[in-house]
Amino acid sequence: MAINARRLTSLPRRRRVIALALAATCVATWSLSLWAQPNDTVPYPVGYRTWTHVRTALIGPQSPAFESFGGLHHIYANKIAMEGYRTGRFPDGSVLVFELLETRENAGVTTEGPRRRVGVMVKESKRYAETGGWGFESFQGDSQTERRLTAESRIACFKCHEPQKDRDFVFSEFRR
Amino acid sequence: MAINARRLTSLPRRRRVIALALAATCVATWSLSLWAQPNDTVPYPVGYRTWTHVRTALIGPQSPAFESFGGLHHIYANKIAMEGYRTGRFPDGSVLVFELLETRENAGVTTEGPRRRVGVMVKESKRYAETGGWGFESFQGDSQTERRLTAESRIACFKCHEPQKDRDFVFSEFRR
Repeated sequence: MAINARRLTSLPRRRRVIALALAATCVATWSLSLWAQPNDTVPYPVGYRTWTHVRTALIGPQSPAFESFGGLHHIYANKIAMEGYRTGRFPDGSVLVFELLETRENAGVTTEGPRRRVGVMVKESKRYAETGGWGFESFQGDSQTERRLTAESRIACFKCHEPQKDRDFVFSEFRR
Repeated sequence: MAINARRLTSLPRRRRVIALALAATCVATWSLSLWAQPNDTVPYPVGYRTWTHVRTALIGPQSPAFESFGGLHHIYANKIAMEGYRTGRFPDGSVLVFELLETRENAGVTTEGPRRRVGVMVKESKRYAETGGWGFESFQGDSQTERRLTAESRIACFKCHEPQKDRDFVFSEFRR
């Protein structure tokens, strides 16, 4: 009877110990993930679909860029970046999004298909000093975590944007 | 000499009279224009280019809609209308814009050309009770004053939207 009584009272205590251990593990994992993430990581542009739509283009099969950039793309800019389009200099905190979509065609009408990727440029002059003050990233499909770029491909992004130096390395212009 | 002196002093007074007369004419013309405008006139959607971009499509020459709607079009929504996309009911004050652009093609890349027109739907349940609560207008090219619709064509807009009654007469859906 004495043993049974101990078992009965010790059950909730055990559960508490397990819960605490689980919580500690979660916190430790989360801390490690933060520690593992370098501070030059470009964040996913949460909510960009309600930012300002800058312009749109369709890259078709006859374009040499089709394999890499084929589909319908939209450029979106956050509020800070809109100042850049006005002045020609993008302040720190500017974020530009290159959203690439597949297309669907039916009876002569081309509509938006699934998201191929979300390209991002973030302006932080000091953090990304080696690539014109811009950090580059590209997210696969609808994912907010699956990153496509390596250190080498980031350099390739910058090399392609480099001739636009006079326009702060930005290709697009805001269509009024 | 006396006449000359009078002429010299009277010149600024004359200018003042002319200026006052001009100002009075301007105010009168402006008041008349307000009076002449019926209160069901759909206003130009000033600033819509920074509203939320809902979706995009391209209507090509193979579409039977090409003659009327050919080109690249974007749908934009003001903040109130965004609630309509979420709930299925568009509150009064909702404004939707159908912006139609010509396209330019070069080496397989289709880009945005000049604006063909700006179509507008404004929700005011009582004012536009006869057309599902929506007022319709269409502005020519970049003009904010050149209106394209007649009383008949407004009815035609509504007749085309009428089958969408279950979605508050709106065709588009917000692409997330």
